[in-house]
Amino acid sequence: MRIVALAGGIGGARFLRGLLAAVGPQDEITVIGNTGDDIHLYGLKVCPDLDTVMYTLGGGIHEEQGWGRTDETWSIKAEMQEYGVGPEWFGLGDRDFATHLVRSQMLTAGYSLSQVTEALCVRWKPGVRLLPMSDDRVETHVRITDEQGTRAIHFQEYWVKLHAAVDAEAIIPVGADTAKPAPGVLEAIADADVILLPPSNPVVSIGTILSVPGIREAVAAAPAPVVGLSPIIGGAPVRGMADKVLAAVGVEATAEAVALDYGSALIDGWLVDTADQDSVAAVEAAGIACRAVPLLMTDVEATAEMARAALALAEQVRT
Amino acid sequence: MRIVALAGGIGGARFLRGLLAAVGPQDEITVIGNTGDDIHLYGLKVCPDLDTVMYTLGGGIHEEQGWGRTDETWSIKAEMQEYGVGPEWFGLGDRDFATHLVRSQMLTAGYSLSQVTEALCVRWKPGVRLLPMSDDRVETHVRITDEQGTRAIHFQEYWVKLHAAVDAEAIIPVGADTAKPAPGVLEAIADADVILLPPSNPVVSIGTILSVPGIREAVAAAPAPVVGLSPIIGGAPVRGMADKVLAAVGVEATAEAVALDYGSALIDGWLVDTADQDSVAAVEAAGIACRAVPLLMTDVEATAEMARAALALAEQVRT
Repeated sequence: MRIVALAGGIGGARFLRGLLAAVGPQDEITVIGNTGDDIHLYGLKVCPDLDTVMYTLGGGIHEEQGWGRTDETWSIKAEMQEYGVGPEWFGLGDRDFATHLVRSQMLTAGYSLSQVTEALCVRWKPGVRLLPMSDDRVETHVRITDEQGTRAIHFQEYWVKLHAAVDAEAIIPVGADTAKPAPGVLEAIADADVILLPPSNPVVSIGTILSVPGIREAVAAAPAPVVGLSPIIGGAPVRGMADKVLAAVGVEATAEAVALDYGSALIDGWLVDTADQDSVAAVEAAGIACRAVPLLMTDVEATAEMARAALALAEQVRT
Repeated sequence: MRIVALAGGIGGARFLRGLLAAVGPQDEITVIGNTGDDIHLYGLKVCPDLDTVMYTLGGGIHEEQGWGRTDETWSIKAEMQEYGVGPEWFGLGDRDFATHLVRSQMLTAGYSLSQVTEALCVRWKPGVRLLPMSDDRVETHVRITDEQGTRAIHFQEYWVKLHAAVDAEAIIPVGADTAKPAPGVLEAIADADVILLPPSNPVVSIGTILSVPGIREAVAAAPAPVVGLSPIIGGAPVRGMADKVLAAVGVEATAEAVALDYGSALIDGWLVDTADQDSVAAVEAAGIACRAVPLLMTDVEATAEMARAALALAEQVRT
């Protein structure tokens, strides 16, 4: 079976680990990773979501943290403080830096981000084919208003520096309008047997991927069933700031509202947590098959069970 | 007193530490640093000699090693091996990487190497004004012949990878012919009260600095006395590969031959080690005032004594 999953960072990566545990060795998983969180730091190209997927599936992730490397050292960060060079709010460990150095050197040499990602995965062997959504630069900016006035800041500044403590007024995927899907993305979607939307952020992860011209259309047009998993449980995101960015796009932070925002034109099936059992009927009324199952990714086996439920629902809605 | 010193890496840096201990707070030291050893690694600009001077005088050097940082970690190097990205023979620690990251980011932003060096020294406070010999790219290459044939390799490859185990046939300061002295270099030489040539490598350190058009001429024309310290003691370099690169330029590895190669047109005074007492007469016969004093930089005080001897000789030859 050929499975395509659109994925953001921590939530997407953890779901994929469960998915890998749920499928067999003959199944092929293609992950289309969000690059809207990418940021240039210290002259290097940093791809937090791609790296989180790569490290998580490749056994290099810092488990408790959910991002960054295990057995990390922080010498460069300490030195940067001594030099007075920021941003001090973004944590890049020394091991992590090595990835960004290799990536940046390859990009400077003329390789595309797809090619670089493939090269990095030669080491990490994530067990999936990891594709960036686009080789073109897309950067998610967030419009906020605070004592400095109204301005758009990089998503990383909004989330990592400001901890989403101010309201997001708009989400702007800068560059998305002219970006092209990376090589293989549209083909993978068209050829998929199942398309999954993991419980990643529906606005700044999945939404950003879908904002690349051609990707939303390809998912909607794909013959494969499309099944999503709600990142909202009981009216709140399990982690992250989905509630804040959903508000910015006028969508309530509920499992039901996220499903309806994706809409039946895009998704065929939707999993909500058992805590949101009440929303099943409303989602189904919108033409989206819906089931309530436990959606907390407490460990790999619980996550694999979520993946099995998603794949089972896909079979049920397959036309 | 305004003192100008031309300096390479480890030997130059250690001499400068002694010089700083020998002079008073009213004395101003300008160091013209060799950048011919500079190398681009992992997309970053690495300036080993400037950094060795900066770290040594700023209290950040790895004392035993003579290069690199104290309390260093090596996470990036380990990661690079995992990625299969070389060169594996060049040791860049994580703390050291931070310097190269800051430098490279500033260079990319359009700052000159002089400006970058000044910015880095804001942190390190080396107690001297550290100027690169040039803001233009100069790279010392070494011509060798081995089983792969005759070819020119980067000086770092010759020294760090091959340990100078093959004969150097020629020393080629690539780019030197069109390089310009960095801002302030010629002015510092012209305005100096004393010019010192520390016991740095006479070919690939001092020689490379002098190969930048205008610098040798400025030193020769300067009103200040020019005094050098022999890096060769008893017919061998104290450390490094001076014997190998001297052979490449047809100069014997003796304290006397190095002095005569600099020549009386360039230097007014020369210190040899007491082990080379016998060479004093020959150097003086060539019109260069010469004294034999202990030249082993065993500790800061011994090195300060060498600096005092050099300054004393400068006073004796001052016309």
